[in-house]
Amino acid sequence: MEITNVGILGAGTLGTRVALQAAISGYQVGIFDIHEKALDASFKLMKELLQQLEKSKRIEEASEKILSRILFTTELEKSVNQADIINESVTEDPEIKKELWEKVGKIAPSQTLFTTNTSYLLPSMFAEISARPEKFCAFHFHDVFYSRVVDIMPHVGTDPAMIPILEDFGKSLNQVPVIVMKEHPGYLFNTMLLALIGAAGKLLTGEIGSIEDIDKSWMVNFHMPMGPFGILDSIGLDTAWHVTKTRKDSASQAFAALLKTYLDQGKLGEKSGQGFYQYPNPAFKQPDFIL
Amino acid sequence: MEITNVGILGAGTLGTRVALQAAISGYQVGIFDIHEKALDASFKLMKELLQQLEKSKRIEEASEKILSRILFTTELEKSVNQADIINESVTEDPEIKKELWEKVGKIAPSQTLFTTNTSYLLPSMFAEISARPEKFCAFHFHDVFYSRVVDIMPHVGTDPAMIPILEDFGKSLNQVPVIVMKEHPGYLFNTMLLALIGAAGKLLTGEIGSIEDIDKSWMVNFHMPMGPFGILDSIGLDTAWHVTKTRKDSASQAFAALLKTYLDQGKLGEKSGQGFYQYPNPAFKQPDFIL
Ligand SMILES: NC(=O)c1ccc[n+]([C@@H]2O[C@H](COP(=O)([O-])OP(=O)(O)OC[C@H]3O[C@@H](n4cnc5c(N)ncnc54)[C@H](O)[C@@H]3O)[C@@H](O)[C@H]2O)c1
Ligand SMILES: NC(=O)c1ccc[n+]([C@@H]2O[C@H](COP(=O)([O-])OP(=O)(O)OC[C@H]3O[C@@H](n4cnc5c(N)ncnc54)[C@H](O)[C@@H]3O)[C@@H](O)[C@H]2O)c1
Repeated sequence: MEITNVGILGAGTLGTRVALQAAISGYQVGIFDIHEKALDASFKLMKELLQQLEKSKRIEEASEKILSRILFTTELEKSVNQADIINESVTEDPEIKKELWEKVGKIAPSQTLFTTNTSYLLPSMFAEISARPEKFCAFHFHDVFYSRVVDIMPHVGTDPAMIPILEDFGKSLNQVPVIVMKEHPGYLFNTMLLALIGAAGKLLTGEIGSIEDIDKSWMVNFHMPMGPFGILDSIGLDTAWHVTKTRKDSASQAFAALLKTYLDQGKLGEKSGQGFYQYPNPAFKQPDFIL
Repeated sequence: MEITNVGILGAGTLGTRVALQAAISGYQVGIFDIHEKALDASFKLMKELLQQLEKSKRIEEASEKILSRILFTTELEKSVNQADIINESVTEDPEIKKELWEKVGKIAPSQTLFTTNTSYLLPSMFAEISARPEKFCAFHFHDVFYSRVVDIMPHVGTDPAMIPILEDFGKSLNQVPVIVMKEHPGYLFNTMLLALIGAAGKLLTGEIGSIEDIDKSWMVNFHMPMGPFGILDSIGLDTAWHVTKTRKDSASQAFAALLKTYLDQGKLGEKSGQGFYQYPNPAFKQPDFIL
């Protein structure tokens, strides 16, 4: 099957990036959001991203040309009715996603493939209600431009023929596709990242190491630009708290409680200017951090 | 206190590296091993390491000059009797280390500081038998040249005044010192690394992802030269099996059982030419691995 038209549902952090990359790769894109304001912000963010990509010579076409392939709309029908494939990136709430997939299942062309970009929910939660379980699969990006892995995770009812189509489509979006053979919350990368973060949180709440020393250990030994607490600041401590508090072991609970003290002080990480570190110019980016 | 003379006990993988870096940093070094052959191999390894360091312009002095500061000996006394500080890197076996520390405690000058480079044992296991518990501390390197973190981990009886001395000494060895505030097997970095490896092992034994896809996820999202299975191959699957099988949870047991099937086929990782990948030129180093 040939993909030429891509429908993106949700114009937030991820929907914006996937839509932009699809347009860069030459696809016609229809991006839908219920909020007009979200579409405005999405357009603005795309322009910023394009500027950065232009600077680092990672796009060849003019930005205007790329943007001209994207339709921004608050009408679901317009983003869906010509789509060969849909990738849904609306708010991580099962009820919101269910309601949307039920509508999409009714109006999308019969051959359209359905994919969700959910981070921790499972495709089987939405496959039936979409009325097209065999064409339903998780297709999960990371941040599209810096972290270029896309997880392909079928549920038991996904038609296996869909996998190679998604692999090719993923590659065409400049991503590295990986297969998650069975449903698994967190896919491959996030599962490992959470294990790392859990271990770092336990070292901190157990008073084994300081934030800085834990991060230094990781950064210096692996030559990485951030350690686990720097990564947490960039993910957002609110998101981290939501994920951590669902785990019932005592170490996760202790770390969730610590994260909550940050949230209560308005420290959400990089986006609020303060988390484990202070932004801009956090300590771990200073040259003397690892001397 | 001034450190000018360093005693290294054990001339294997780690002892050799610590001794060499100490000589590069200008210290007089006495390296001791019970096996004459180990000392010969150590000398050879140092020459190879010096060649690499010379190539990448990371040393200023001539190799001969650096090596001239190192005494290789099978007589414990000779490596110990002038040492201001001792770092012990003998085989990871509590009985071997105890026996050695008992001897060292009897013959070392009274002001000499005692440190162990043990990976998973604890300094409190050897502090008393050394007869100098207040001068005993873990001082744990990674690989000295690529991974430059050194963990400083006191036991409850370590004199706190020893910590800043070890911090300065670590810096003088071109390492990044970090403090492990309480005894903790695995220190900071190895604790996090094991969590990552445990999660990767669980994804593999649970048939969630393939070796290659798990590694790709990590490498591409974090821009790292290896993923967890590449790292395991470089650590050695025998070492990984020893560490994994001591953990009692079912996921670790399943992964230990899988590692055992590799060992039974003589696949120990990079050093045996075959582990999760084949060496030299493992698949993950090929340019098409992440296309
Ligand atoms: N942020 C990340 O790093 C990341 C990474 C991978 C996947 N994801 C997943 O992508 C999805 C979106 O995450 P995000 O970070 O972009 O969130 P976001 O809050 O930035 O964006 C969500 C967007 O969905 C819109 N929306 C809400 N209800 C809608 C509806 N019924 N119809 C259409 N639009 C609706 C909102 O107005 C908002 O613009 C989530 O499932 C998340 O788990 C996020
Ligand atoms: N290999 C690593 O990556 C690594 C990293 C950090 C710390 N360590 C720790 O360093 C120590 C040594 O590890 P390694 O990998 O260098 O092992 P190795 O097997 O390469 O070397 C151990 C050396 O100790 C010698 N030895 C044994 N008994 C001795 C004795 N009684 N007196 C003197 N020498 C004796 C052996 O002959 C051998 O040369 C261990 O405690 C290990 O946990 C290893």
